Amino acid sequence: MSRQGQANRARRVGAGGAGRAGPAPSLPDIGAVRAAARRLKGRVRTTPLLESAALNALVGGRVLVKAEALQHTGSFKARGAYNKLLRLGRKERARGVVAFSSGNHALGVAGAAAALGAPAVIVMPSDAPRIKIRGTRAFGAELVLYDRLREDREEIAERLAAERGLTLIRSFDDPDIIAGQGTVGLEIVRQAKDHAPEPAAPLDMLLVPCSGGGLVSGCALALAAESAGTAVYAVEPEGFDDTARSLAAGERRRNAPGATTFCDALLVETPGILTFAIMAERLAGGLTVSDAEVARAMAAAFDHLKLVLEPGGAAALAAVLAGRVDCRGKTVAVVGSGGNVDRETFCGAISGAGEDA
Amino acid sequence: MSRQGQANRARRVGAGGAGRAGPAPSLPDIGAVRAAARRLKGRVRTTPLLESAALNALVGGRVLVKAEALQHTGSFKARGAYNKLLRLGRKERARGVVAFSSGNHALGVAGAAAALGAPAVIVMPSDAPRIKIRGTRAFGAELVLYDRLREDREEIAERLAAERGLTLIRSFDDPDIIAGQGTVGLEIVRQAKDHAPEPAAPLDMLLVPCSGGGLVSGCALALAAESAGTAVYAVEPEGFDDTARSLAAGERRRNAPGATTFCDALLVETPGILTFAIMAERLAGGLTVSDAEVARAMAAAFDHLKLVLEPGGAAALAAVLAGRVDCRGKTVAVVGSGGNVDRETFCGAISGAGEDA
Repeated sequence: MSRQGQANRARRVGAGGAGRAGPAPSLPDIGAVRAAARRLKGRVRTTPLLESAALNALVGGRVLVKAEALQHTGSFKARGAYNKLLRLGRKERARGVVAFSSGNHALGVAGAAAALGAPAVIVMPSDAPRIKIRGTRAFGAELVLYDRLREDREEIAERLAAERGLTLIRSFDDPDIIAGQGTVGLEIVRQAKDHAPEPAAPLDMLLVPCSGGGLVSGCALALAAESAGTAVYAVEPEGFDDTARSLAAGERRRNAPGATTFCDALLVETPGILTFAIMAERLAGGLTVSDAEVARAMAAAFDHLKLVLEPGGAAALAAVLAGRVDCRGKTVAVVGSGGNVDRETFCGAISGAGEDA
Repeated sequence: MSRQGQANRARRVGAGGAGRAGPAPSLPDIGAVRAAARRLKGRVRTTPLLESAALNALVGGRVLVKAEALQHTGSFKARGAYNKLLRLGRKERARGVVAFSSGNHALGVAGAAAALGAPAVIVMPSDAPRIKIRGTRAFGAELVLYDRLREDREEIAERLAAERGLTLIRSFDDPDIIAGQGTVGLEIVRQAKDHAPEPAAPLDMLLVPCSGGGLVSGCALALAAESAGTAVYAVEPEGFDDTARSLAAGERRRNAPGATTFCDALLVETPGILTFAIMAERLAGGLTVSDAEVARAMAAAFDHLKLVLEPGGAAALAAVLAGRVDCRGKTVAVVGSGGNVDRETFCGAISGAGEDA
C-alpha cells in the first residue's frame, strides 16, 4: 500500500473507531508537534542524548540514549501533560483535571497541574510503585487508588469527571498528548546532528518503549518530517506485545490476560485509536523483550550512563542490547523513557543482571 | 587580610612549597579556565544542572545539582585530563602519559588519551572499585596495580615516567588540570542564570566534593570571576577533612592515618600546593559529612533525580541534605561529581538509607 493509501486508511480508522462519545478527534501532525515544542519551551527540560564508548562497543555501532528519566517528574509524560493542560481554557483548568495512570502519566499530570495551579485527581492502581504514588501525592494531587485486576480505571475516571466537572486527561489517545510526547523526537533529531565529540551521523533507527503508543507515535511524526530515513520501532515486554501484533495484523489487537512483567509502565492492553492510526502508517515494526533483557539494560544504563531507568524505561535499550535489530555499523537512538522505580526493584534487577564482557 | 594580600600570600605559598623538581608552576587564573572551556568545546559534555521539587522541599530552598556523573568517563575528571593532554606538544603526547589515581582520574586520562591517540599507563590501587579498573582497561590503558596501604603510587608513577619517557599527568596539582575542572563552575553559573522553568536566582552557595582540591579550586576561580557573591565550600568525608583543617589553620595539614570511608574518590591525604593556595584565598570554608549522610544523598539522587552518584560524588549533596549549611530561602548549587560505583556498593548504600519524609 502506498504511503498516501496508508494515510487514508489510518484516517478512516481514526474516524471510524469511535468507542467514545462525540466526534473522534483528528490525528495530530508534525505542525502540532512543532507547536507543542514552542509551547513547552522553558517548561520542560531538554534532556541530554547520552552516548557511551562501552555501549557502542557492545553493539558494534553507535547507541544514543535520550535520557527522559531526567525529565521533570522522572519521565517523558510531563511533556504531553503540560501540552494538554496548556491547551485547556483557563476556566477548564481552574475546574480541574482527572487522569488514570499506572504512574508516570499520573506524575506528569500532577506535576503540570501543580505548576499551572490546576486541581488534579489521579486514579492509580494500588499496586503501583510506591515512588510513583508518593511522588504524585507530593505534587498535591488527590489520589484515588483502585484494584488493577478487578476495577475499570477508565470508568472510575469518567465518573469523577462527570460528577465534579473535571476534564479527563487521557494518557495517550489524545492529539495534544501525542504532540507533546513527539517533542522527544524533535530533540533527538536535533541533538543527533550536533553530537559532540563524535561526528554527525544519520539516524538509522529509533527504538521507543511502547504501552498505549503516545510516545512512539509522536516521535514517529517528528522523525517522518525531520529524519525520514530513520526506521522507528515500538518496543514492548513479552506478553504485552499488543502493538507488535496489531501492526502485523493491520488492526488493533489485545493482550491475552494472565501475562506478567515488571515493566509496570507498559501494561496497556491495546493500542489507542489515534496512536494505532499513526503507528500503522509510520512504524517499521514492533519488537519484544523479556524481563531479563530489560534488567540487563537497566544494569547497562547504571554502569555505562549513570542513568536510573525504570523497567519500562529500559525496554528500548534492552532491544538494542539483545540484538533485536542489527546495530552493526549503524547509529541507533533509543528513548530511556522514565526512571521512576523503587529502590528494591532497581537493585533486584541490576544485581541479578550479568556483567558485560 | 585584603583579597590582594591573600592573593600575594597564596602566590608565595605556591612558589615556596616546592617538594617537586624544577620551578613551581604558577597559579591558574580565570583566563586559564576560560581558555580551557574553549579548548574543551565539542570534546566534553555540557552536563545538565538538575533540579527537583522534592529536593527543594526537603531543604526549603532551591538545590541545583550539576550532573557530572553524566560526563564522559563518568566524572568531571575528563575535563582536566583533556585540557592537560591538549596542552602537551604532539611529540609528548605520542610518547605517552602516566597517571596515578584511585579511579576517576584514571578513567579521565585513559579516555582522553584514547580519544587523542596517546598511549597511557595508569597506576591504580588494587582495591579500587571494579567498575573503575574495568573501565580504565576498556579504554586501552596499561594498568599498574599497587597496594594502597604499603606502596607509594607517586613514586611508582614517577619511576615509570622516567624509565619510559612518559609525561606524568597529576590528578589535581597542575594548572591545566585545575583550569579544566574549573569549566564545571563556568557552566554552573551560565546554567543557573538560564534555568527553566524556574526564574533565575543568584547563586548563594556552591558546594563541591573535595579530595586534592582540583575541582573546587577550579570552580572557585570561575565563581569569583562570574558570580562573586557565591560562597564556595569544599566538602569532605569525616576523617578525611584535611582541606577543612588546612583552611582553618591557614596551612596545609594531613589526615591522621587509620580513618575509613566508602568515598573512595576522596582519600587524598593533604591538599595540593596550588589547589591550597587557591582555596585559601577563595573558599568560604570546608564541610564534612558521614558515610551515612552520603548514602542518604545517593538515595535522594536516585529517587528524585534518577542520577547515579558514587559515594564521593554525593558528598556535596549530602552536606546540603544534612543541613551543614542553611539553605532555607537560598539557591544552592552542588556538584554531583561522579557516578563510577559498583552495583553492590550502590545498592547497599541506597537500600540502607531511610526514605525522605
